[in-house]
Amino acid sequence: MNIAFLGLGTMGLPMAINLLNAGYAVHVWNRSPAPVEKLASLGAKVATTPDDAVKQADIVLSMLADDDATRAIVLDAQVLASLRPGVIHINMATVSVALATELADSHREQGIDYLAAPVLGRVNVAEAGQLNILAAGDAAALTTVQPLFDVLGGKTWHIGERPEQANAVKLAVNFMIASAIGTMGEAAALVRGHNASAADFLELATSTVFSAPVYQGYGLAIAEERFEPAGFKLSLGLKDVRLAQAAAEQVNVPLPLASTLSDAHIESLAHAEGHLDWAALSRTSARRAGQA
Amino acid sequence: MNIAFLGLGTMGLPMAINLLNAGYAVHVWNRSPAPVEKLASLGAKVATTPDDAVKQADIVLSMLADDDATRAIVLDAQVLASLRPGVIHINMATVSVALATELADSHREQGIDYLAAPVLGRVNVAEAGQLNILAAGDAAALTTVQPLFDVLGGKTWHIGERPEQANAVKLAVNFMIASAIGTMGEAAALVRGHNASAADFLELATSTVFSAPVYQGYGLAIAEERFEPAGFKLSLGLKDVRLAQAAAEQVNVPLPLASTLSDAHIESLAHAEGHLDWAALSRTSARRAGQA
Amino acid sequence: MNIAFLGLGTMGLPMAINLLNAGYAVHVWNRSPAPVEKLASLGAKVATTPDDAVKQADIVLSMLADDDATRAIVLDAQVLASLRPGVIHINMATVSVALATELADSHREQGIDYLAAPVLGRVNVAEAGQLNILAAGDAAALTTVQPLFDVLGGKTWHIGERPEQANAVKLAVNFMIASAIGTMGEAAALVRGHNASAADFLELATSTVFSAPVYQGYGLAIAEERFEPAGFKLSLGLKDVRLAQAAAEQVNVPLPLASTLSDAHIESLAHAEGHLDWAALSRTSARRAGQA
Amino acid sequence: MNIAFLGLGTMGLPMAINLLNAGYAVHVWNRSPAPVEKLASLGAKVATTPDDAVKQADIVLSMLADDDATRAIVLDAQVLASLRPGVIHINMATVSVALATELADSHREQGIDYLAAPVLGRVNVAEAGQLNILAAGDAAALTTVQPLFDVLGGKTWHIGERPEQANAVKLAVNFMIASAIGTMGEAAALVRGHNASAADFLELATSTVFSAPVYQGYGLAIAEERFEPAGFKLSLGLKDVRLAQAAAEQVNVPLPLASTLSDAHIESLAHAEGHLDWAALSRTSARRAGQA
Repeated sequence: MNIAFLGLGTMGLPMAINLLNAGYAVHVWNRSPAPVEKLASLGAKVATTPDDAVKQADIVLSMLADDDATRAIVLDAQVLASLRPGVIHINMATVSVALATELADSHREQGIDYLAAPVLGRVNVAEAGQLNILAAGDAAALTTVQPLFDVLGGKTWHIGERPEQANAVKLAVNFMIASAIGTMGEAAALVRGHNASAADFLELATSTVFSAPVYQGYGLAIAEERFEPAGFKLSLGLKDVRLAQAAAEQVNVPLPLASTLSDAHIESLAHAEGHLDWAALSRTSARRAGQA
Repeated sequence: MNIAFLGLGTMGLPMAINLLNAGYAVHVWNRSPAPVEKLASLGAKVATTPDDAVKQADIVLSMLADDDATRAIVLDAQVLASLRPGVIHINMATVSVALATELADSHREQGIDYLAAPVLGRVNVAEAGQLNILAAGDAAALTTVQPLFDVLGGKTWHIGERPEQANAVKLAVNFMIASAIGTMGEAAALVRGHNASAADFLELATSTVFSAPVYQGYGLAIAEERFEPAGFKLSLGLKDVRLAQAAAEQVNVPLPLASTLSDAHIESLAHAEGHLDWAALSRTSARRAGQA
Repeated sequence: MNIAFLGLGTMGLPMAINLLNAGYAVHVWNRSPAPVEKLASLGAKVATTPDDAVKQADIVLSMLADDDATRAIVLDAQVLASLRPGVIHINMATVSVALATELADSHREQGIDYLAAPVLGRVNVAEAGQLNILAAGDAAALTTVQPLFDVLGGKTWHIGERPEQANAVKLAVNFMIASAIGTMGEAAALVRGHNASAADFLELATSTVFSAPVYQGYGLAIAEERFEPAGFKLSLGLKDVRLAQAAAEQVNVPLPLASTLSDAHIESLAHAEGHLDWAALSRTSARRAGQA
Repeated sequence: MNIAFLGLGTMGLPMAINLLNAGYAVHVWNRSPAPVEKLASLGAKVATTPDDAVKQADIVLSMLADDDATRAIVLDAQVLASLRPGVIHINMATVSVALATELADSHREQGIDYLAAPVLGRVNVAEAGQLNILAAGDAAALTTVQPLFDVLGGKTWHIGERPEQANAVKLAVNFMIASAIGTMGEAAALVRGHNASAADFLELATSTVFSAPVYQGYGLAIAEERFEPAGFKLSLGLKDVRLAQAAAEQVNVPLPLASTLSDAHIESLAHAEGHLDWAALSRTSARRAGQA
């Protein structure tokens, strides 16, 4: 079984390595050369263009940066046009519901299965092969690729038969993360307003009622006002909230909390904080209260 | 050391029992008789009026329902007027920052220490003596009463020297809970809008990124649309969000997420859902999307 | 017919003068002496205490600053207790729906008619006797006092039989004004963001689609960034929005736009702009966009 | 001077007629034939394709439905490609700031002046040649076309040198209209909640403080709950709010009121009210309060 892997970024790189280590033959392509060399040294075959990478593939995995990159590679750079009928394309990136629907349709027209399988987990989880994989698409195709998911992830969640459903779920999770961060920011401002320690408050909250990793990680960053280097950039957080809003609007679901959150993100960008870690969203709450 | 305990509701009852079991002499008073009888059988001395309960007390603990009940008992029913100088009054209820400030002032005028010590944890945690206690007030007085906190709680968090700071922190935590519930409600509506399973989504989210008790409890209720019997009523949730907003406004801290949440709660009340469990807030998100 | 007039502030003063000029016998009281002297010179009888002013009155008009002042004078300073059965009390101030209800009840218990008659219009309109009067209460009592309304106002609008209904309507109008100001602030920030002239835009909007006095007045202040002296203070604007929200919450009506507006006002206060004219709310929109 | 006019919809038709009546030679094109015949009978030359209509034009006016239609005709259907250097293209439709920027760039590359000149006013105002024209672009080109604007409008407002600035201003005005409607909806719900007449309240507000045409028109529709036939569809209102939000986000300007409004519109769509008049936005406020 020949695998093509497109997009060796922060997440794609360890995922591709895990596939190689599991004994799969992997053709790789990436826009920039550094990660490609790394994989070549581990036995991957290197393609110089995306369409070249996929020509002999039975299964294509793509993990490209965003909608634009995915569209540019899959559609404009002829990846889809190069696939033979019967191939399965698994898009593991976080893309919009609209693009997922469009890609599912265009793949179907060529007799190719398109699966969406966005993931939960940061780089270290990807390295450990313990990602949570949110998979949706044709049931038979999902069965076929499950061995790959078992290499990449700790658990595969079957979301539904339409690929975009997995993207909707992924975006719903990311919206929840944005809300957790934004809520901590407002709560910290309230506590600070009464001259109590926001750091103590956040330690208290995230070691009791909110003892979940996402709260602890972002809570600590807010407590320490440590926003560089960015683990995940605030500007990317806005992108994800926007994708969640678009996914919701498409099916007439109002999300007032998401709207409130996206306004806060825009305000962060207006104050040149988009490059900071997502936790820096808390600065907008502080600034509004005259605390910053 | 004589202890008076006022207010034997769901939380106050197990707390008073724990103090008795730890060997303290406890004078109790409660508006309704049932819990009083239970405590009398365990050795508590029973007072028929609040002021009678506190006359010989060295330390008064109160755990009354809300601002109105606290004001009615402590001020109108002459509890404060009955205390001797040197007594310490620990208010463990969730009350407004404004009332805490007012009570701290009026106690100080009479030479009485007023401590705020609201708690985190449901009934079973109270029974186990494992509450998280958020304590604020005079440092010496806090040291004096620490043995009592050690009976009632697993951990005492010192918030500051002004009692109302503990109330501000407690309200900040409750606002965060409201936000978690409201966010799950919106996210579930988004997922449902794409014909994916909200229950599966909530299981996924609350067993991975959001694996905290508060998400799991309310998430399951939302997933199963099980809102009765109410563990904590939606109408009380609104009361807490309102108290958080008031605490914030008092120090000029805008809380747009709290505002968005209180609008959703009011909408729930307009649809006669205030008696349901707080998780029923999710129905408003569903209704707005035409899903209910 | 003896008239007592309580509260000779910016609005009360010209109203009392108009009643004197129309030939009515008016007993006046005011907390500070300056306006009292003015009225004495015009023939008013001067009372040194509020209860003294109303003792012989057939009709009492009050125009006190806010809820607190109204409560202090009408209830605490024994005005109500001094009224004979059959007297009509017309409260023309903007007070909360809750206070209106409470006052209506307490007056009824003493056999006194309580009417609410808040007004629309600034000082110059009051001077001209051209106020819009929003009147509610007992129909017969309203008929009795109509000659007074005809002196004070250009038009009397009958709102309903319960006094608080007039206050609800008045607060609804003031919420609309807040929204108009807040909306111009956001729209101006949008235009400014594209390097177009906010002043030209506001002139355009308020001389075409929005050619109403409230838009033109506040629009010009926003355009010129002229916020002092304050025609109506931003902090009082917040008070009115809060009263509208309270009136709405009491009957389970969510007002998300009002919530968004009150957050903006709080943010203005956090930046020490509460003393500026209500139009300064626009600065918060500019600040959020990094324009200020 | 040869004029081409593309898009003879509700607004375009009377505008083209006015140009003919003023003596201009006008080539017209429209997707559907009915309005074309009408214009032919008045002396217009009829083109069967858009590119045919513009081939000999010195000035092209387009008034197409939206971004998609504009893009389809101007770019895909070769209108731009058919223009000679020196031609001036005036786009009078309400399109996105992003499209305006893109069109300005692509026209410039071909040596063609692109002006944006969206208008304020309904059909009857267009018929009367009394539109307010918001014009932006190259100053010399604007001077050249002013005689046409004088035929079509009562007043031309010069917004700036970059065409998209006029679109930003137009969208800011439309956002203000959305806010006026949404605010009346909330205020009416508040008044209704106190069992007072929303119709009387709206008459009062729109004949006093808010005596502007936009309030009177939409206010009357809300008062009478008369939402069909739609003067301007709610779904198109959402489109305009969205364009305003996009224009703002592009320059990092948060618009919380616009966000609150777009959520309300989405909720209207979720309840199948998108085809109703924009005034039907008020039904969402009523529904949230349990009044509908």
